[in-house]
Amino acid sequence: MNSKITVIGAGSWGTALANLLANNGENVEIYARDKEVVKTINQQNYNFKYFPDIKLNTNLTAVNNLKKSLKETELVVISVPTQALSGLLEHLQKFLTTNTIIVSTAKGIEENSFQTNSQMIKEAGFENVVVLSGPTHAEEVMTELPTAIVAAAKNKKIAEKVQSIFMSKYFRVYTNPDVKGVELGGALKNVIAVASGICDGLDFGDNTRAALITRALNEMSHFVEYQGAKNVTLAGLSGMGDLVVTCTSMHSRNRRFGIEIGKGKNILEAKEKVNQVVEGVKTTRAIYKWLNSNEIELEMPITEQVYQVLFNDKDPRQAVEELMLRTKKHEMELLVDNSLWDL
Amino acid sequence: MNSKITVIGAGSWGTALANLLANNGENVEIYARDKEVVKTINQQNYNFKYFPDIKLNTNLTAVNNLKKSLKETELVVISVPTQALSGLLEHLQKFLTTNTIIVSTAKGIEENSFQTNSQMIKEAGFENVVVLSGPTHAEEVMTELPTAIVAAAKNKKIAEKVQSIFMSKYFRVYTNPDVKGVELGGALKNVIAVASGICDGLDFGDNTRAALITRALNEMSHFVEYQGAKNVTLAGLSGMGDLVVTCTSMHSRNRRFGIEIGKGKNILEAKEKVNQVVEGVKTTRAIYKWLNSNEIELEMPITEQVYQVLFNDKDPRQAVEELMLRTKKHEMELLVDNSLWDL
Repeated sequence: MNSKITVIGAGSWGTALANLLANNGENVEIYARDKEVVKTINQQNYNFKYFPDIKLNTNLTAVNNLKKSLKETELVVISVPTQALSGLLEHLQKFLTTNTIIVSTAKGIEENSFQTNSQMIKEAGFENVVVLSGPTHAEEVMTELPTAIVAAAKNKKIAEKVQSIFMSKYFRVYTNPDVKGVELGGALKNVIAVASGICDGLDFGDNTRAALITRALNEMSHFVEYQGAKNVTLAGLSGMGDLVVTCTSMHSRNRRFGIEIGKGKNILEAKEKVNQVVEGVKTTRAIYKWLNSNEIELEMPITEQVYQVLFNDKDPRQAVEELMLRTKKHEMELLVDNSLWDL
Repeated sequence: MNSKITVIGAGSWGTALANLLANNGENVEIYARDKEVVKTINQQNYNFKYFPDIKLNTNLTAVNNLKKSLKETELVVISVPTQALSGLLEHLQKFLTTNTIIVSTAKGIEENSFQTNSQMIKEAGFENVVVLSGPTHAEEVMTELPTAIVAAAKNKKIAEKVQSIFMSKYFRVYTNPDVKGVELGGALKNVIAVASGICDGLDFGDNTRAALITRALNEMSHFVEYQGAKNVTLAGLSGMGDLVVTCTSMHSRNRRFGIEIGKGKNILEAKEKVNQVVEGVKTTRAIYKWLNSNEIELEMPITEQVYQVLFNDKDPRQAVEELMLRTKKHEMELLVDNSLWDL
């Protein structure tokens, strides 16, 4: 019998990962807050809220008692929203030894501390943190469509352990030591997905979106570099791969949220329509606050405009037009090698 | 009166660019081979084949006589398929002085010479070549949706001249000296768009496409570097911007062609369905031939698989699965900074 794995959180991603691990023959248990969800998983093998049509692996069991679910667990997969992480960590500190491997799967930045999920987990005393991030819609993992993802950890052995646990015929895991670069890519792309959705809600086209995504990768690059991570990581799955899928797919809740905003809805109405956690909203505010509280010499025009639209009632059309059309000529193509000019 | 500009080719892109220039107040004439097109543009201000619902600028005139259309022209925009370029250049050599500015807009590699469009134009004696390339569907330029594009030339003044002629409220032009990098990005993305379409035709999802696009950017990077261009150019509009839009939009004929292939059609059937030039097919064959005739130490697995599917009857599903699932672990994330590992 393999040692026990606990997945905390029975949202769409937590459920998909737990189901994947069960398919891989792992001894996995999923913790759900909602007793009804626990019951339907255990009795009927369904999580009706997220996957009403897909039967779960019958070896997957659910529990409602966190303490019990963490007993004798060797590896914990955290799948709760970033803003709920600090509360959860207080419990984990009580129930887990500090050498437990923690796999972090949420994509966001905590608003008050301006920390990524892995930073918070480390600060809570857990050294063996692995970030699992990439362009991966839960729905498609559930239906076993070919998917690729990154497992990032400073410690190569631990990254490879997580890689081998999750790897399957349809789920390919690549390791990367740039934890912060992987994590920030996943957090930032949610902000851009909101912006991309806004463009779509305003009926701008593919050309506009392509220009936005290109510019976004630039903006993300500067931020990631400023944070001491590698901007080359943004060229991989967890960066541009995730950015592309989030900005173009109707599976993306951040994009769907943005579409509603573009159509003229306010934050509350748009959130209601999407009816799932929209990490991009809080990440936008977190970055905006950080930019404006630290006298930081970093321009993030897309994040800035998304903030103004979401929190200061700026007209979305005006915001997009300022971004796309009034851009100074040198801003878009920052990566030009100017030494090549024949003058 | 501004000096005369001639656009050669009244396909969708040639028409959209000529119309844009007319909107900008330029003195522009479009050359069309088809007399009927010339007639409808001049008499009714429509190019019914490509834009049956959009009235052209009434100042745009069309001609059917190439020699006449090139008389006293200061700048020529070439918008014919790559494979038709060499024939056209023979005429241009007769009718134009060698200092005429030539704007090249086709995205491809000539199969026999393995040259890009700008290389062929230079070889024909025209030194002032500018490549105009980026994520730009003609349909959206016609409807004045915000669009960004790159004007690439070694000579900065000429790049800036072209920039100022095309620039408008909804059409932003950025200059770049890496002509080859810009051009190769535009050519290679057509191959990837075919691959992306094949995935879609097989009903793979967004996750698969994101993994493919990420891997493609890697493959394109290596090729561009091998050709002596800057792979950093691929992070811009003409690289990843164009790649993203081509792989995700139904406007893309290369993608639509790939979808038909993925559904089991052969090349001829798929071409018939798309009913426009599919540059990716010939570019795939050009690269494949080049790779296999020069003992080149360069792996281009996506291009290789597209070639096998198109020209050697390989089963598309098997090709995608080999690409996505049997990939060696190190192949996807080539840009990992391995110095970061704690060992």
